[in-house]
Amino acid sequence: MGSELMSNNHLAAVLYGAQDLRMERVSTVPPQPHEVQIRPRATGICGSDIHYYQHGRNGSYVVRTPLVLGHEAAGDVVAVGKDVTTVKVGDRVAIEPQRPCSSCRQCKQGTYNLCPYLKFTGSATANPPVQGSLQQSYNHPANFVYRLPEHLSYTEGALIEPLSVAIHAVRRSGLGAGQSALIFGAGAIGLLCASVARVSGASTIGIIDIDQSRLDYAKSHGLADHVFKMPADASDLWSKSTWPTKLGGDILQQPGFGLADKVFECTGVELCVNVGIHCAAPAGKVVLVGMGSPLQHVDVGAAAKREIDLLGLWRYANTFETAIDLLGSGRLDVKSLGTHQFELDHAADAFDLVLKKPAGLVKCIITSN
Amino acid sequence: MGSELMSNNHLAAVLYGAQDLRMERVSTVPPQPHEVQIRPRATGICGSDIHYYQHGRNGSYVVRTPLVLGHEAAGDVVAVGKDVTTVKVGDRVAIEPQRPCSSCRQCKQGTYNLCPYLKFTGSATANPPVQGSLQQSYNHPANFVYRLPEHLSYTEGALIEPLSVAIHAVRRSGLGAGQSALIFGAGAIGLLCASVARVSGASTIGIIDIDQSRLDYAKSHGLADHVFKMPADASDLWSKSTWPTKLGGDILQQPGFGLADKVFECTGVELCVNVGIHCAAPAGKVVLVGMGSPLQHVDVGAAAKREIDLLGLWRYANTFETAIDLLGSGRLDVKSLGTHQFELDHAADAFDLVLKKPAGLVKCIITSN
Amino acid sequence: MGSELMSNNHLAAVLYGAQDLRMERVSTVPPQPHEVQIRPRATGICGSDIHYYQHGRNGSYVVRTPLVLGHEAAGDVVAVGKDVTTVKVGDRVAIEPQRPCSSCRQCKQGTYNLCPYLKFTGSATANPPVQGSLQQSYNHPANFVYRLPEHLSYTEGALIEPLSVAIHAVRRSGLGAGQSALIFGAGAIGLLCASVARVSGASTIGIIDIDQSRLDYAKSHGLADHVFKMPADASDLWSKSTWPTKLGGDILQQPGFGLADKVFECTGVELCVNVGIHCAAPAGKVVLVGMGSPLQHVDVGAAAKREIDLLGLWRYANTFETAIDLLGSGRLDVKSLGTHQFELDHAADAFDLVLKKPAGLVKCIITSN
Amino acid sequence: MGSELMSNNHLAAVLYGAQDLRMERVSTVPPQPHEVQIRPRATGICGSDIHYYQHGRNGSYVVRTPLVLGHEAAGDVVAVGKDVTTVKVGDRVAIEPQRPCSSCRQCKQGTYNLCPYLKFTGSATANPPVQGSLQQSYNHPANFVYRLPEHLSYTEGALIEPLSVAIHAVRRSGLGAGQSALIFGAGAIGLLCASVARVSGASTIGIIDIDQSRLDYAKSHGLADHVFKMPADASDLWSKSTWPTKLGGDILQQPGFGLADKVFECTGVELCVNVGIHCAAPAGKVVLVGMGSPLQHVDVGAAAKREIDLLGLWRYANTFETAIDLLGSGRLDVKSLGTHQFELDHAADAFDLVLKKPAGLVKCIITSN
Repeated sequence: MGSELMSNNHLAAVLYGAQDLRMERVSTVPPQPHEVQIRPRATGICGSDIHYYQHGRNGSYVVRTPLVLGHEAAGDVVAVGKDVTTVKVGDRVAIEPQRPCSSCRQCKQGTYNLCPYLKFTGSATANPPVQGSLQQSYNHPANFVYRLPEHLSYTEGALIEPLSVAIHAVRRSGLGAGQSALIFGAGAIGLLCASVARVSGASTIGIIDIDQSRLDYAKSHGLADHVFKMPADASDLWSKSTWPTKLGGDILQQPGFGLADKVFECTGVELCVNVGIHCAAPAGKVVLVGMGSPLQHVDVGAAAKREIDLLGLWRYANTFETAIDLLGSGRLDVKSLGTHQFELDHAADAFDLVLKKPAGLVKCIITSN
Repeated sequence: MGSELMSNNHLAAVLYGAQDLRMERVSTVPPQPHEVQIRPRATGICGSDIHYYQHGRNGSYVVRTPLVLGHEAAGDVVAVGKDVTTVKVGDRVAIEPQRPCSSCRQCKQGTYNLCPYLKFTGSATANPPVQGSLQQSYNHPANFVYRLPEHLSYTEGALIEPLSVAIHAVRRSGLGAGQSALIFGAGAIGLLCASVARVSGASTIGIIDIDQSRLDYAKSHGLADHVFKMPADASDLWSKSTWPTKLGGDILQQPGFGLADKVFECTGVELCVNVGIHCAAPAGKVVLVGMGSPLQHVDVGAAAKREIDLLGLWRYANTFETAIDLLGSGRLDVKSLGTHQFELDHAADAFDLVLKKPAGLVKCIITSN
Repeated sequence: MGSELMSNNHLAAVLYGAQDLRMERVSTVPPQPHEVQIRPRATGICGSDIHYYQHGRNGSYVVRTPLVLGHEAAGDVVAVGKDVTTVKVGDRVAIEPQRPCSSCRQCKQGTYNLCPYLKFTGSATANPPVQGSLQQSYNHPANFVYRLPEHLSYTEGALIEPLSVAIHAVRRSGLGAGQSALIFGAGAIGLLCASVARVSGASTIGIIDIDQSRLDYAKSHGLADHVFKMPADASDLWSKSTWPTKLGGDILQQPGFGLADKVFECTGVELCVNVGIHCAAPAGKVVLVGMGSPLQHVDVGAAAKREIDLLGLWRYANTFETAIDLLGSGRLDVKSLGTHQFELDHAADAFDLVLKKPAGLVKCIITSN
Repeated sequence: MGSELMSNNHLAAVLYGAQDLRMERVSTVPPQPHEVQIRPRATGICGSDIHYYQHGRNGSYVVRTPLVLGHEAAGDVVAVGKDVTTVKVGDRVAIEPQRPCSSCRQCKQGTYNLCPYLKFTGSATANPPVQGSLQQSYNHPANFVYRLPEHLSYTEGALIEPLSVAIHAVRRSGLGAGQSALIFGAGAIGLLCASVARVSGASTIGIIDIDQSRLDYAKSHGLADHVFKMPADASDLWSKSTWPTKLGGDILQQPGFGLADKVFECTGVELCVNVGIHCAAPAGKVVLVGMGSPLQHVDVGAAAKREIDLLGLWRYANTFETAIDLLGSGRLDVKSLGTHQFELDHAADAFDLVLKKPAGLVKCIITSN
C-alpha cells in the first residue's frame, strides 16, 4: 500500500467535451483542515459519466470547463488536514462523493442528499466543478471518507457508491423480511437493488429486462428467483393506453410472479414505470430509481386504487457505513459486478468500451496502481 | 328521536339511469345477526353521486340495476341483529359505508380500505349494488356504525365520511405540527383537508383554486392563511412543458407561500399535480386526493430531485372514531360546510341544484325527518 | 395425507391440574360457518405450556376446568364450515392460535394481537378455555389457518408460531440491513430472533446466554457471529447498582461486540434487560421479548441518555403469511430447532422431558399420525 | 435594538459552587469563522440550572471551574465570523444551546442530539465548560441560531428551548390528530407538552399533578380538558405493588379520563411512570420526559401486555425552526409561561426565588437590557 504525496504533478483524465478525454499532468493543493488527500485506486464508471463522455453533458449539466470525472471511488489517504481525527495517512477508504453544507435544515435532519448547497464530486453541477477521482490525487472532506476493512478490495470499495443507491432505494421502500420485490432493469443498479433486497429478506425477487443475457446473469448469480424478458418493442406499443395493463397482466401470470410488495424501477422507461404500478400489491411502493425522461405519462389512477406510492430517489444518505458493514461481514458480495478493468492511463479505452455495451458488461473499473 | 321500523314499505330515491331518479316505496329485510338497521336522517351528496346522477355511471361503474345512492350518512339505529352488542336501538350513528371482508391480508393489516372483497354502499361497484342511504331504512354491519355524541347533529354525522378522506390524506402525508401545507382545490374535500391540516398543527396553509368565491370562503372561515387564484386557462397552456415550473414559481413568489412540506392535490387536474410537485419542499409529499384522468403527464424528474413522494389515496380506514373525537371535542368544526339542505322526497331537486354548481355551495345535505 | 373426520370420539391430552395430564376420548362439534376442523399433526411445546403442566397455572391464569394445551400447531383441514372459501378439506395448514373479534378498534387497525376480546387457543385465559391442539380434532376460524407449501413439513408448520414471535420482535425493532443485533437468551425464541435478524440483513449478531452448549449450538448453526457466556451468578450480583454497567462494559469489550442497534431480550431476567440497555447504540431499541417478573428495576436513566426505546411485545400479528413466505422460499430454515419428538399418546412423557431441560433440547414436538 | 460589541469587558453571572453566584466582568474572544457573537436579552431558568445553583452540581456533573449558566436564551447578533451567511449583525435570534460535531453517524442521520461529541452550553458536562447566556456576550455556532420574527419577543425566544423538549417529546410519541394525551406534571415542561399536544390535534388532554394551583393554571389557560390531583402521599404507598394499578384505575374512572394514546411523564417520579403505563391505551406510548432516579421499578409486564413502548428522551433535534413556525404563525402562544422576570444583575435573586417554588411560578426569565 505505497502511499505518496503527489499533489504537485499528478496524472488526471480530463474531459474537455464530447469524447475529448485527455491524460494530463495537474496539481493539487494541500488538504484543508477538515479534508484528506486521496490517492484513488479504483473508480467505477457510471451511466452519468458515459453521458458526459459521449455528449459533453449530462442532461442540463454541460462541461464548460475541463472536468475530471469519477465519483465511484476507493483509494488511500495520503495526507490529512490538521483537524482530521477519524482517518489517518495510510488508511484505505471508500469516498462518498457528496459535500453537503452540514448546516441547512436538510443536513440537520439527516437528509443531506437533499442539501441545496451540496456539491457533487466529478460532475459539472457546480461551477467550477468539484474534480473527481479519475486522477492520482484529490482532496475530500474527512467526514465523507470511510475506512475499508482489510479484506475488502479497492474495487469493492468503489462499488459502494452504486451500492449506496440500492441501499437507499430499499430503505425508502420499507421492504421487510418475507416481502416480494420486482425489479425493472438488470444493469448494475438493478442487480444491486436485487442484492440488497435479498439481504434484507425479500422472499421472492423477480427481475425484468429486455436483454436475456443480463437476466441469465441475474439468475445464475442467485439474484433473481424469477426473470421475465420484456418484449424489445414493448415501448413502441405504449401509445395504446391499455398496454401497461396487459403487459402487467402477462407478467403477473408468469410462474413465480405476482403482485409485488416493492417495485424498483431502474430503467427510467415510461412503460416500465406503468407496468410496475400494475404489478404492485395493495399499499405497495414503486421506487423510481432510474432516471429517464422527466415528464412521463403515469397511470396515477391505477396507483391510487391500491394506494401505491411513487417514491422519487435522489442519490443516498447514510449508506456508506451500512454498505461497509454488509460487505465487510460477508452478508453481501458484489465483487462479481466488476466485470471489466482498465488502468487510469487507458481511461478513454474504458469509456469507449462501456459505450459499446458489450454482452457481459456490468461495471467497468478504472484502476490506478 | 322517533325510531320506528319501516322495513316493509319505506320511501327510497332510486336511480334508474342518467337523470332518472324516482321516489319509490321499497322493502328491507331484517338485519342479519351482525347488522343493524338504520333510519338515515342526513346524507351528503358527493361528486361521485353527481356523476351517477348526471351520466348514469361513475367512470367504469354503470348503473345497470336500480341504485339507491347515498354513502355520506348519519341516522338512527332502529333494529339490531341478534349478535350486536356495540350499539342499540335508538342510538344516533354515523355510518362508514365500507364493508370489507375482515379476513384477508389487507383487512388483518389494518388497511381494510384496500380489501379486494370490499363492498361500498350506494355505488354500482358491486353487482347487485349495496343500496345506499337515500331511503328511509337500510341494513349495515354493526362494526361500521359509530355512535354520535349527543351534541353532534346528523348533518355533522353525515360530514364524517368526506372528513374521513381528509383525515386519511393528512395521516398518510405524515404532516407534523409546524409544517406547511398547500392545497389545490377549495371544494368540500380541499376545505376539509385544510381543516384537518390546521387541527394537526400546520403552521401555514395555502389554498389554490380557480374560483375566487371559494378562496374567499376559505379565507373568511380561517381555513387558509394564504390563497392564490389559479388562472382559469392555466391548463390550456400546459402543452408548454415549462408551464408548471413557471406557475409553480409564480406561486412560490406570493406573499406567505413557499415550498410546502405537504401538498394535497384535490382537483385531479394534471396541471395541479405538476405545479404541486414544483411547490413541494425537499422530502415533501404530494398526496393525490382528487381523482382526474387516470393517465397523467407527471414531472417525475422534478419529484425525484427533491425526493418528493406521490401518494395515491383510496378512501380511508380507521378514521370515523378519529373524526368523532375531533368533532365531539370541539377541536374541529365542520358545520358550516353543510350549505344547502333538501328533504328526501325532493332528492332530485337537490341533485339538480348541485349540478348547477351555484356560488356558495360546499355540501348539499338531504335530510329525512 | 389421510384426512378423516373424528369429531365424535377422538383422543385428547387433557390437563386437570399440576402434572395431571390424562389421555381421554372427547368429542368435537361440527365447525361453525366460518370455521374449519383441524386434524393436528404436529404441536410444539412452549414455555407457557410447561408452566401450566408443572404448576397447574401460568402466572395468574389457573387451570380451573380441564384444559387441552397446544398452540404451536400444524395439521390437516378435515372439514370446513359452509362459508369457508379460502381453504378446503385436505389442505395442510399452520394454525394461528389467536381468535380476535375482528370488529374492535385494534382489530381494524391491524394490531389484532391487542384485541381486548381475543381468545387464545390452548390456554386458561378464557373461561371456558378454547381447547388447544394436543388432541386429534378441533375447530378454528378459517381466516386464521394458512396453507403450507407441499415441501414444508408439519413440524416446520408448528414452528411458525414461535417464529411469529421473532418476526414480530424484529419488525417492531425496525432492524434494517447492515445493522447489528444483540440477543439475550439462546433458547428457541432467542435463536429464532437471531434467524429472523439474520434474514433481515443484520450484519453482526451476538448472542448471550449462561449455557455454553446453547451458545455452541447457535455458533455452529450460523445464527451468531459472536457469543458471550454470561456468568451464571451475574444476577446475584445485581444488588450492586453498577453491575449492569460493568457487565455491559465487559461485553462491549469482547471481540466482535459493540453497541448494538437492536437488542432482543429473550430471558425476562432483570439483569439482562439492564445490560441490554447498556449495550444498545444511540437511538437503539431494546425489545422485551422474554417475560419475567412484571415489576423490574430498569435503568431508565441510561436508556434516556441515548434515547433507547423499550418496546413491549405481546404475541404477534400478521406474521404467519410472512413466515410461510420465508420458510417456503428457503430464505429461512428452522427445521433443526425441532430437536425432540413424541407421539400424542406419550404427551406426558414429552412434558416430563422438557421439564428436565436436557442439553441439546431446543423444541420438543408432539406428533399425531 | 441597540447592538454593541462588548466582548472585552462585559457582565456575567458566574457560578463558583453551591449558591455561590457572583456578578463579574469577563471578556470574550471574537467569533470564529462559523460563529456569531450574541448579546443575550432573555434567558429562562431551567430545573437543571437550579440543581447547579443549589448543589453546585447537576447529577454527576460538578461545577469544578467557574460556570456561566444559561441555555434557554434569545438575544441579538452583535458580530459574525467571516464565513457566516445565514444571519447578520442586528438579527434577533433564538439560540439552540447544542454544539454537535456535524460529522459523526448520529449527526449525519439527523439525531444530532445523540452526538457523542456534543457540547452543551451553560453546563459542566464539558471541561472546560461551554459558558452560557447569563452574561452580556458569548459566541455560538451560526448554524445553531435562528432568526426570530419581529413580533416575537426575546422572552418567547428564550422559551423556544423548553418548547423544543415538548416538540421532540410529542414528535417521538407519534401523536396524531384525534388522539388523547395524558400528562404527568404541570410544570413548564408538562404545560408545554400539553400545548404542543393540543396544537398537534390531541382531542383530549388530561393533566395530573399534586399541586392544585398548577392544575388550575392548566385548566384556566385551556391546556387541559381534564385535570386530576394526585394524592401528595401517593409515592409513599408505592411499596404496595398494586398501588399503580389502583391509582391508574382511579384516574381512568374520572370524568373525561380513559386509556390515553400517548402519555407524557414529566415528573421523573417512579410512581408516575407506572401509573402512566396503566393509563396507556393498547399500542400506546409512554414518553419519559422527566428525569428522576435513573434506576426505577417499572411494570414492564403491564407495558408488554398492551405493547406500550417506553420512549427515552434526550433533549431535542430539529425543533427550533418548528417552534418558530408555530409561535410566529400564532398557532401556539407560550407568552403566559414567563411568569417572573429579573434583570441580569439580580440573577442570584432570580435563582433564590425559583428555589422557593412560589405558587404561580412557571418560568422565571432573566433579562438583560
